[in-house]
Amino acid sequence: MSVLPESGIISFARGIPAPDMFPADELAEAAQRAFARHRATALNYGPPAGFGPLREWIAAEHGAAPEQIVITPGSYILLTFLVRVLLEKPAPVLVEVPSYDRAVSLLRTTGARILPVRRDESGLDFARLEHYLATGERPAFCYLLPTFHNPTGTTMTTADRERLADLAMAHDLLLVEDDPYGPLRFDGEEPPSLRSLLAARGAGHLSVFMSSFSKVVAPGLRVGYGVLPEQLAQRVAAVALGTYVSPPLWPQAEIYEFLAGGFLPAHLSRVRGLLRVRRDALVTRLAAGLNGIGQDGIGHEGAGPRWSNPDGGYFLWLELPAQLSAADLLADCERAGVTFVPGWGFFADGGGGSSARLCFSFHSAEEIADGADRLVAAARGRLVGTGAA
Amino acid sequence: MSVLPESGIISFARGIPAPDMFPADELAEAAQRAFARHRATALNYGPPAGFGPLREWIAAEHGAAPEQIVITPGSYILLTFLVRVLLEKPAPVLVEVPSYDRAVSLLRTTGARILPVRRDESGLDFARLEHYLATGERPAFCYLLPTFHNPTGTTMTTADRERLADLAMAHDLLLVEDDPYGPLRFDGEEPPSLRSLLAARGAGHLSVFMSSFSKVVAPGLRVGYGVLPEQLAQRVAAVALGTYVSPPLWPQAEIYEFLAGGFLPAHLSRVRGLLRVRRDALVTRLAAGLNGIGQDGIGHEGAGPRWSNPDGGYFLWLELPAQLSAADLLADCERAGVTFVPGWGFFADGGGGSSARLCFSFHSAEEIADGADRLVAAARGRLVGTGAA
Repeated sequence: MSVLPESGIISFARGIPAPDMFPADELAEAAQRAFARHRATALNYGPPAGFGPLREWIAAEHGAAPEQIVITPGSYILLTFLVRVLLEKPAPVLVEVPSYDRAVSLLRTTGARILPVRRDESGLDFARLEHYLATGERPAFCYLLPTFHNPTGTTMTTADRERLADLAMAHDLLLVEDDPYGPLRFDGEEPPSLRSLLAARGAGHLSVFMSSFSKVVAPGLRVGYGVLPEQLAQRVAAVALGTYVSPPLWPQAEIYEFLAGGFLPAHLSRVRGLLRVRRDALVTRLAAGLNGIGQDGIGHEGAGPRWSNPDGGYFLWLELPAQLSAADLLADCERAGVTFVPGWGFFADGGGGSSARLCFSFHSAEEIADGADRLVAAARGRLVGTGAA
Repeated sequence: MSVLPESGIISFARGIPAPDMFPADELAEAAQRAFARHRATALNYGPPAGFGPLREWIAAEHGAAPEQIVITPGSYILLTFLVRVLLEKPAPVLVEVPSYDRAVSLLRTTGARILPVRRDESGLDFARLEHYLATGERPAFCYLLPTFHNPTGTTMTTADRERLADLAMAHDLLLVEDDPYGPLRFDGEEPPSLRSLLAARGAGHLSVFMSSFSKVVAPGLRVGYGVLPEQLAQRVAAVALGTYVSPPLWPQAEIYEFLAGGFLPAHLSRVRGLLRVRRDALVTRLAAGLNGIGQDGIGHEGAGPRWSNPDGGYFLWLELPAQLSAADLLADCERAGVTFVPGWGFFADGGGGSSARLCFSFHSAEEIADGADRLVAAARGRLVGTGAA
């Protein structure tokens, strides 16, 4: 699955960490501690909601009770469980546009009516959201990626988060907040989570917070989790039991010892540094190559390409001029040995045809610069050809 | 979930290994090798069908191609995937009675029509099986636990396996062979797998072989697998991708290094020894306490209780006289601090009311003897009360 640099192809496509991001030595030490301390419990079958000590660690981190925590093999399967529970009775679902492509596909398979809410560099389309709620829609939940959004890399402002929390309270709306990238912040200030804003309003029952150690530590361990209202946690754990009897407790014990051993802060600091350098390489080369044929920076309307400048996470979003199809650009790029994910898969409402998600996590800064140059050359070729330059 | 000896309760209920069965030191060494050798691949996302080197090891073990192997977090979730693929179009399913209770429940949730086929100490009810096939039933598959059957602990004879393989060929019937306990043989000779018999007939396309390292090594790693026809393997891997994106590769790499390090034979030899002693403790005390009130040993019809004498695996099956309800016995047993699983959950056809599954894997021989004495006392009390003694 992973695209190896030796293939000569630079992939901006998959949102996966680079092998140099894994804290393998620290994990090896954590594993030895887990074998010493948890062999009797974590090597056996156990609670479907996950390894007790890790549930307690996550609960403390989020100011929640351990009974609210469900640990799953990655957070995506948790989303599938949530969807099964929350859409047991048919109901529409509010979804950002664009949004995580696998979540959009999952919701489509349920047959749930998707109520799309555009989100761009200026924020969420609150007029539309309020219109849905004012006209009597009773969505089962609203699925959001507030921080280092997949695919755009943008982060919702604190003001918009406050407004969302207020709306949720006014309409008894459950906010499902998917936040696998939050700790990977290399610039700017961390805004409050929707969960914390709802809790401060005494409305913790309207919050589901999902995250994962896949991007924060390593995905091969498959340790994701949710912080849920306790009753919902029980229902989700029951689905987990019916799906795999017992979760992979062993990697959960390894992650627990990694956290309890205090390895996380130094590791995060190193990974943030790697990601910042890679983001910089990408943004610098896009600016150098594309500014000449359009406006630079996101937030400026214009004929030229625009892109986000994320403060963390894995993704940068490239908006192309409307006359340039991302499919055409991708075809040219693949001939030049660079690839990305075209935008339309992230759009629940059929848009996204002239946009691209560029992931800057996997390659070195040098490879990213090389790939960005190839992409810029392809885009310039197309834009000159279509008369936009 | 686990019943700790210090609770004072002896559990014959759950089919889980005892902590003293885990090869924890060897796994710790295997984990270090995995960190040294596979950190770049097994800590990342990867192929939905599982960790490449482990797929190759399993394929070699079973004389299959690596493309036929799908590794899943435990084998139960693999069964859920199989059921989704094989029952995409509605079709009946042939199921042994009794059979693994979770499999029976799973099949019930699909709405598939279950065609029950009794299996007892004398073997499978071939007359019934052949009747179904002769009268035009086209089952999607036949689900079987040929070796150290759950719940009865019995093993299908080679002659019955040959007959099944012939029937499968004659009727183009897929045999799904669930074999998590096979390597835990402490007595007798290993019969050929259905898979090997079908392969010898050039009918490997009619075989699905499922197993797991949960009982053979440790369940907390959650490493189960299937050996499937290649096309079916691809379809199952696609369901896996849609369920969890990427499996827990890391514990798969740990298991791989455990196997590649040659730790398995000595470990299995030790576990078989533990299980034999525990089986002996259980059988000895049942015989000592119950022979006086009925026939001993399975295969003898009579008024008294009968039980299987398994050559391996985790389970012994206790058939009570028909007038004694397992529910009543369980209530008495629980008051006496011993528990088991009553038989009816394993019966797709509504039978099993006077039977019990006794798992002898979890407790020490001393605890098992103690628990068996308590169970015997409860059964004698009931049987005297109902006049059977």
